[in-house]
Amino acid sequence: MPRLVLIRHGQSAWNLENRFTGWWDVNLTDKGIEEAKAAGALMAAKGLDFDLCFTSLQTRAIKTLNLALEEMGRLWLPVEKDWRLNERHYGGLTGLDKAETAAKHGDDQVKIWRRSFDIPPPVLEAGSEWDLGKDRRYADIAIPNTESLKDTIARVLPYWEQAIAPQLKAGKRVVISAHGNSLRALVKHLSAIPDDEITSLEIPTGQPIVYELADDLTATDRYYLSER
Amino acid sequence: MPRLVLIRHGQSAWNLENRFTGWWDVNLTDKGIEEAKAAGALMAAKGLDFDLCFTSLQTRAIKTLNLALEEMGRLWLPVEKDWRLNERHYGGLTGLDKAETAAKHGDDQVKIWRRSFDIPPPVLEAGSEWDLGKDRRYADIAIPNTESLKDTIARVLPYWEQAIAPQLKAGKRVVISAHGNSLRALVKHLSAIPDDEITSLEIPTGQPIVYELADDLTATDRYYLSER
Repeated sequence: MPRLVLIRHGQSAWNLENRFTGWWDVNLTDKGIEEAKAAGALMAAKGLDFDLCFTSLQTRAIKTLNLALEEMGRLWLPVEKDWRLNERHYGGLTGLDKAETAAKHGDDQVKIWRRSFDIPPPVLEAGSEWDLGKDRRYADIAIPNTESLKDTIARVLPYWEQAIAPQLKAGKRVVISAHGNSLRALVKHLSAIPDDEITSLEIPTGQPIVYELADDLTATDRYYLSER
Repeated sequence: MPRLVLIRHGQSAWNLENRFTGWWDVNLTDKGIEEAKAAGALMAAKGLDFDLCFTSLQTRAIKTLNLALEEMGRLWLPVEKDWRLNERHYGGLTGLDKAETAAKHGDDQVKIWRRSFDIPPPVLEAGSEWDLGKDRRYADIAIPNTESLKDTIARVLPYWEQAIAPQLKAGKRVVISAHGNSLRALVKHLSAIPDDEITSLEIPTGQPIVYELADDLTATDRYYLSER
């Protein structure tokens, strides 16, 4: 029976400052580092093990994975990094904190962008200080200039189908270290959560989420590892 | 013109204790961590960049790479990990410190094992506390029970030819984080160093070694990055 573990990266500097991060490459805080190590220690203590790891191209998710794997004595496992597991791109909200955003756009509008399924924030203007057009890691792709959760799902799921699901079906034990919204995309898919419910599903940082799956990868159980 | 960078891992706990390590998976010391970060900072300051990374299946080399890449803002680069870049297997000497080894086998014999090209140490006995037969990371390979430098070269070079050289020829910028003897294997090959000279060539920890290569991968220059 395939088993999949999802981990949202530990606290980042902008989680702490309450700023929209999206694709901006913010590092973990000291607390985030401790969360990642604790996730690894918990997985080791519960006897979890893996054959293959997936993560995004963003430092906070990669580092969370590396710290957890080191705690497990599994730094040698193969790791695939792909932009399709990146956080949702927050467009023109990138870099703004909640107060700035509310002052600029109004509370109600901000709530719509945060919580609607298919309404993206305004686009990030080219040449903005948060423009990643010159970041070499994205040289081969069309960088989005904003994304709704629906848009995020539309690039996460093809990667799931092409790269991750076949490994699970082949019997590999998989861990994915990623972001609030790329993990929402996977949870929505695996747990068949409706569009209007998924946006309010909170995925806590540094908490391993375990999926027990049937051979066709339908979920038979989902739980926080800390609760079993 | 292809460029290749080699890094020997930073100081490990057993480097510090002067024990034969080989395939035993010893972690970096605090000094080793600082060496790895300094290597990354130096590469960033000198404007070096990479497309692809190779390392062994051993924590000290993987962690050295990860720490250096983080300093460079390049934790997102693809990394291939392979046992053929592991340290020379020291057989029955594994775990012994220099004094113990000399007391057990005599100074002259130890010098022969350390410095001869093709005489391996005694084999590691199966079931020894240093036996890696149950280590999952090596489940798919025939773990050596001892190696001379010649034996080490005999598994490093096929990996070089199959996995690394084609990437350099395709224009990729490559960094390899590995071990004293797996790097000796590469340096011997690239710089055409005779059998009786390579065993005394010291490769310092945490010092990036740069190879400038012709299109056929013959070396046109080799230098410590810290000296240019």
